Amino acid sequence: MSTSRVINFGAGPSALPQGVLKKAAQGLLNFNDTGIGIAELSHRSKEFGAFLSNVESLIRTQLDVPPTHSILFTQGGGTAQFSAVVLNLLARHRLLYPDLADEHRVMDYVLTGSWSRKAHDEARRLARGARVNVALDARRHSSDGVSFDNVPPHGEYAFSRAPALIYYCENETIDGVQFSPDPDARTSFPFALLPREPGGLLPLVGDHSSSFMSRPIPHLSEHAVIFAGAQKNLGPAGLTILIVRQDCLVDVDAAARLGATPVPLCLSYRLLAQSKSLYNTPSLLSIYITGLVLEQMRELGGLAYFEALNRTKAEKVYAAIRAGEKRGVFQGKVQAGSGSWMNVVFNALGDGAEARFLEGAEKAGMKGLKGHRSVGGIRASLYNAITEADTDTLVQFMEKFVSEADSA
Amino acid sequence: MSTSRVINFGAGPSALPQGVLKKAAQGLLNFNDTGIGIAELSHRSKEFGAFLSNVESLIRTQLDVPPTHSILFTQGGGTAQFSAVVLNLLARHRLLYPDLADEHRVMDYVLTGSWSRKAHDEARRLARGARVNVALDARRHSSDGVSFDNVPPHGEYAFSRAPALIYYCENETIDGVQFSPDPDARTSFPFALLPREPGGLLPLVGDHSSSFMSRPIPHLSEHAVIFAGAQKNLGPAGLTILIVRQDCLVDVDAAARLGATPVPLCLSYRLLAQSKSLYNTPSLLSIYITGLVLEQMRELGGLAYFEALNRTKAEKVYAAIRAGEKRGVFQGKVQAGSGSWMNVVFNALGDGAEARFLEGAEKAGMKGLKGHRSVGGIRASLYNAITEADTDTLVQFMEKFVSEADSA
Repeated sequence: MSTSRVINFGAGPSALPQGVLKKAAQGLLNFNDTGIGIAELSHRSKEFGAFLSNVESLIRTQLDVPPTHSILFTQGGGTAQFSAVVLNLLARHRLLYPDLADEHRVMDYVLTGSWSRKAHDEARRLARGARVNVALDARRHSSDGVSFDNVPPHGEYAFSRAPALIYYCENETIDGVQFSPDPDARTSFPFALLPREPGGLLPLVGDHSSSFMSRPIPHLSEHAVIFAGAQKNLGPAGLTILIVRQDCLVDVDAAARLGATPVPLCLSYRLLAQSKSLYNTPSLLSIYITGLVLEQMRELGGLAYFEALNRTKAEKVYAAIRAGEKRGVFQGKVQAGSGSWMNVVFNALGDGAEARFLEGAEKAGMKGLKGHRSVGGIRASLYNAITEADTDTLVQFMEKFVSEADSA
Repeated sequence: MSTSRVINFGAGPSALPQGVLKKAAQGLLNFNDTGIGIAELSHRSKEFGAFLSNVESLIRTQLDVPPTHSILFTQGGGTAQFSAVVLNLLARHRLLYPDLADEHRVMDYVLTGSWSRKAHDEARRLARGARVNVALDARRHSSDGVSFDNVPPHGEYAFSRAPALIYYCENETIDGVQFSPDPDARTSFPFALLPREPGGLLPLVGDHSSSFMSRPIPHLSEHAVIFAGAQKNLGPAGLTILIVRQDCLVDVDAAARLGATPVPLCLSYRLLAQSKSLYNTPSLLSIYITGLVLEQMRELGGLAYFEALNRTKAEKVYAAIRAGEKRGVFQGKVQAGSGSWMNVVFNALGDGAEARFLEGAEKAGMKGLKGHRSVGGIRASLYNAITEADTDTLVQFMEKFVSEADSA
């Protein structure tokens, strides 16, 4: 069956390692010799409990998550977290500053792409009197004034004094923009500039959905909340992973009694933590496959291995774009230093060139290269399961496309 | 591998048909000859779109869902719906009666077990000034005054005049209590007594999580919302199915401008319907397996087949309990006429009898028979994937247990 498989460069749900899928197929029929398939197993069985605890430990060890932070598993994707971070951190702010007038509760949003903008819009929907401040809008620094195509320099951010939360999206899947992992780079996230609370903490929220477990997370221990859907680097859709600093596991009912918006049970971080992610039935199958992927990651050498691999893969594709730019065949869509390792976006120039590119790629066994419908163009997603050989196949196709355009 | 499989009488996640699991294992590697596994496929691909549309149609046809109602797919389980029904139907009530004082907005809850009580508690958490009325508390009619062990007669219900919602749980998984499907039975749901709106509609909400697709739903077309997790009769955990009457797909933002609580994006019925259940990435794998199960159901004869099968299975187990009661070995936990077809609960009497029963059952290849930790005892869950032969295995074990207790 695997001979007919194609290379899946889609932005998510994305490619998964073949070996993992074969093991998962067996687990569907019989999980760890229990005689019951993983999709049929009780989430309260000791077998599943041990598996879940190992998944947590595989994340904690590889990402170096400190004991100050809980690792939680839930459903609903990034969209549910857009709401959850607002409700939980406004509740926390209410408990910290019960007497503050609502108009002095501010949430700071850093806008570098379509997903951070969506999260910002949701904060506005749920704010009920609190203010939403745009701490940065990268479109003001774009090449055309309207696109998200860059991470601006540190001097351009304007944070509030004591915000309830500071929000950023680490990798913008649609726009192909990502913060630099190099703290000295002009396009890194400005951790040093963030407004600290009297106790020294930061109410910092990072959406790491499409870069989670692709490389280490800078300043992880300073985050209040990091969230990520599993369906990019880790597993099937249906699982969301949270890393929450324990002071953010607040009593949302106590906050509601002080006037905060009540928080639906399914969005309360504290309830999730108290129940060890088993308040209600989780998506066992997604957790299972994610666990198998994490186990394989560890065997291959963990995040250091994938960081090096992902850097190499991205560099190869960006080099192919630059080579095509010199011939007037391709055009990168993101400014230098802001390009994502995970989602590389570019245009094929000339009438019908894009359709020709996508069609040729499909014939050559590569799928999912069409850019997001809101921005068009071409997008190559290079998540962990994309091998260097897969990347080489793409790069060779790009080179061939350029040389054929030259001779046309 | 299947020779070592055991019979899974667990209350959910529950048994799935072997043939479906084998097909699903193949789909993990290659979905419908796309060359991409189902867990890796884009939810916006035409292949998945066609599959999802077929899943919808399999539900609509077999349950006879009228065109007035949308069938929607989401995540978060029943717990998320406890909150969603309150927020969406309070928003609807706000739009219908914008000038009503909050204390005149009432939600009616029918309490027949642990799950309807949890839903009621969540309504109280989210009510913000609206009232929660207990239209019925079945504990008042129980044999011991504290247990949920019955469905009371129609005369015991006390509904409000113009409630924002009327809530019931069709089958109580923990307590083993279910409404009778026979409209003339004393223990049926009192549809004729419900307070109608001026237009004749009912704001009726049914939690059908653990009985969905096990038999037809009485008065389906009169419901405002029916919700169900897939992990009982249909598929793996991680998928929630909604049937929502279209007048309940309300503009929650317009309601919020009139003072209603803002509704998180992931809980808005209207947004889900407008995006055809694809506002964000759904749990493709759970939808896939659910689709395979629904296809098999249709081939076997649909709901009529399963209704007859499930009635027979339940009758056999209740008969075995009654036979054990005569010998003082078993004791049924639910009053006559109120017993669930899906979750049959009873006690094994005498010191150590329960542990002996569970241990013997496990040795005989039957798992998941321990009652919920909050109520104890024994619980046999007889969801669709439990065959009549599986049931006979259990009944024979029960008979043997009784005869051995006799001779001891």
